[in-house]
Amino acid sequence: MPQNGIIATMKLSSLGEFGLIELIRKASQHSLSPGTKPLSRLVLGIGDDAAAWRGNELVQLATTDALVEGVHFTFASTSWKDLGHKALAVNLSDIAAMGGTPTYAFVSLCCPPDVDSDDVLAFYEGLNGLAARYDVVVAGGNLTRAPEVSATVFVTGEVPEERMLTRSAARAGQAVAITGNIGGASAAVSALRDGRVANELPAGLSAALSRPEPRLAEARRFTDAGIRCGIDISDGLLADLTHICEASDVSAVIEVERVPLHPDCVSHSQGPNMAALSGGEDYELLVVGDTDSIRRAAETIDIAVTIIGRIVDRVDAPRVSAIDARGTEISQTGKGWNHFR
Amino acid sequence: MPQNGIIATMKLSSLGEFGLIELIRKASQHSLSPGTKPLSRLVLGIGDDAAAWRGNELVQLATTDALVEGVHFTFASTSWKDLGHKALAVNLSDIAAMGGTPTYAFVSLCCPPDVDSDDVLAFYEGLNGLAARYDVVVAGGNLTRAPEVSATVFVTGEVPEERMLTRSAARAGQAVAITGNIGGASAAVSALRDGRVANELPAGLSAALSRPEPRLAEARRFTDAGIRCGIDISDGLLADLTHICEASDVSAVIEVERVPLHPDCVSHSQGPNMAALSGGEDYELLVVGDTDSIRRAAETIDIAVTIIGRIVDRVDAPRVSAIDARGTEISQTGKGWNHFR
Repeated sequence: MPQNGIIATMKLSSLGEFGLIELIRKASQHSLSPGTKPLSRLVLGIGDDAAAWRGNELVQLATTDALVEGVHFTFASTSWKDLGHKALAVNLSDIAAMGGTPTYAFVSLCCPPDVDSDDVLAFYEGLNGLAARYDVVVAGGNLTRAPEVSATVFVTGEVPEERMLTRSAARAGQAVAITGNIGGASAAVSALRDGRVANELPAGLSAALSRPEPRLAEARRFTDAGIRCGIDISDGLLADLTHICEASDVSAVIEVERVPLHPDCVSHSQGPNMAALSGGEDYELLVVGDTDSIRRAAETIDIAVTIIGRIVDRVDAPRVSAIDARGTEISQTGKGWNHFR
Repeated sequence: MPQNGIIATMKLSSLGEFGLIELIRKASQHSLSPGTKPLSRLVLGIGDDAAAWRGNELVQLATTDALVEGVHFTFASTSWKDLGHKALAVNLSDIAAMGGTPTYAFVSLCCPPDVDSDDVLAFYEGLNGLAARYDVVVAGGNLTRAPEVSATVFVTGEVPEERMLTRSAARAGQAVAITGNIGGASAAVSALRDGRVANELPAGLSAALSRPEPRLAEARRFTDAGIRCGIDISDGLLADLTHICEASDVSAVIEVERVPLHPDCVSHSQGPNMAALSGGEDYELLVVGDTDSIRRAAETIDIAVTIIGRIVDRVDAPRVSAIDARGTEISQTGKGWNHFR
C-alpha cells in the first residue's frame, strides 16, 4: 500500500482475500451511527469465526436471497453499487414481509479474481448505504472465487410474535392491498431483453429494477393497524398471492384494472398488463386484512396503498382469479417467476 | 406425480422451483427428532418470507460459507450427498470455533436447470443427516438457477458470552493445540490435481476432503476446561494461527515435527510437510490455552489432542514461526489458502 494512505484500485488477485476483508470491514464500520441498537448488542462483527450478538426475547427472523450474474443481472445494466443495494434490499423486503425489524446482514460474495477491489467496495457502498438507513449491521460474510459474480445475502431480524405478518393468516371476506405500483422491474427486464441499452431506459424503470426500496416502514404501519397477513411481491403478484392462498387455504379474486402499474410500463402495452401481474422483482408489499384496517394504515403511509381484490372461500384448490371491470375472468398466461422453468 | 406415491427423478426444469421446495421441505421435516430444542423454539420454518424462532438471552452466533463447483469441488470427486454434508459441516465448524451450539441452518443452493431433483435431494440427505446429529434445524433457504452449482449455507448458534472462544484471547506463555490430524484434505486435493481418479484415492483421504466432521463436542470440552481462544483450521494451520496472533497481538512458534499428520499423507512427502501445514480445509480445531487446561480437556475428548507449539511475545509484527526438532526455523513457502490469489 502507498505510504500516503491512498489505496489504489487493485485486482482481487493481487490484494488477496484477507486484504479485501480488511477494506470491507473498514468500509462497513464507518457507515453506521454509533447509537444503532443492533450495534450496541453486537459482541463480535467481521473478523472472527462467526458473528456474535446478545440475544433477546423477541421472535428472531432470518432470510436469504441470492443474485447471480447472467441470471438475475448483468453488468451491462447493473452497476456494482446498485448490485450491493439490491442484494440487501431483496432480503430486507423479506423481513418487511414478516412485519419485522432487520438487525444483522451477512454477505457471501463470489467473484472472479480479475475483479477490481474498487468494484467490490462500490458493491459495499450500495449495500452499506441501505443498511445504514435501516440500522442494519453488516456483521460478517464470506468471500470466494467463482467463474461469475454472485451475491448471497443473509439477514436476521426480530418481531414481537403477536405482530408477525404471515402467509397463512388470510381469511375469506378480507381485502387484498398492495403498496406502490408494480410492473416496472419486469418492463425493464423485457426492454433489456429486447435489446434496449440500459442507460436509454426511462430512469423510473432502471430504478424499479436496480434500486427497489424495502417496505419496512410501511409494514410496521400495517401491523400497527392490526394487519397480520403479508408477503413481498418477489415472484410476481399472481404467484405471491397464490402462495398466500395456499398457506391460508383460501382463494382470491383480483380486479385487474385496479392494480396500480408503474407509470413507465403502462404505455408499453394494451389491455390488461399480464406481464406486470406475472413479472417478478417488484418488492412491493402485498397485505390481506379488513378493509377498515387497511384504510387506517394507508392514512399513515407515505406511498400509495391500493385495494386490488378480495379473499374468498376456495371452491376446489386454492387459486387466484384475475377479473376485468365487468367481472369476467381473464385467462392466465403465466403465474410469475419460477426458477429452473 | 404418479398415484402410487413414488416420485420419479425429475429435471429441475420440469419440477420447478416450488415443486422442489416442497420436496426439500418434506425431506428436512423428517430428519429431526420432535424433541430437538431449536425445533421447539421454531415459529415458522421453510415456507414463509423468513424463518422465525423465539429469542433467548444467550449470545447469538451466525456464520456463512460457500462451496462453488470448479473452485472448491468438482462432481468428478464429490458426490451430491457429500457436498450437502460438507456445505453444512464447514459452517458448523465455525460455530464450534466459537464454542457454540448450532441452532438453525439456511441453505442457498444455485444450480443449472438440467440437474436432477434426486441430486438435490441427495444433497439434502447429506446435509440433513449431519444436521440431525447436532440438533440443527434447516429453517429456510433459497433456490436459484446458475451456470454451475454452488451452495452457500448460513448457520446460527448460541453460546453463553463468558464461554465464547475468540481469536483475540491468546496470551504469551500459553500452549497451542489441535484436534485430530491435518493434511488429509490438501493431500487429496493435490492427488486429484495430479490426475489421480477420485475413487482410487485412499478412503481416508477422500473422507478428509469430502466429509469433515465439525468439532462441536470437542469445542464444548475445551470451554468446559476454561479455554477461551480457538479457531477452526479452514485456511490452513499457519494462516489460521496467524489470524489468532494478529487478533491477540502475539506471535507463535510451531514445532513442525509435533504436528500430527493424516496417516495417508505422511508417506507422500519427505522432510517437514509444508503442504500439510499450509493446506486448507482440515476443519480441525486449533485452541490456545494453559497446558494444564488443554491436558484436562484432552482427557474428556475421544480424538487426539496434540500440543504443537506455544504463544510468545511478538518482536515486530505478530507472526508464526515453524521450527524443526533442533529449534531451527524452517522457511515458509506458503501461508495457507487465500481466495483470489
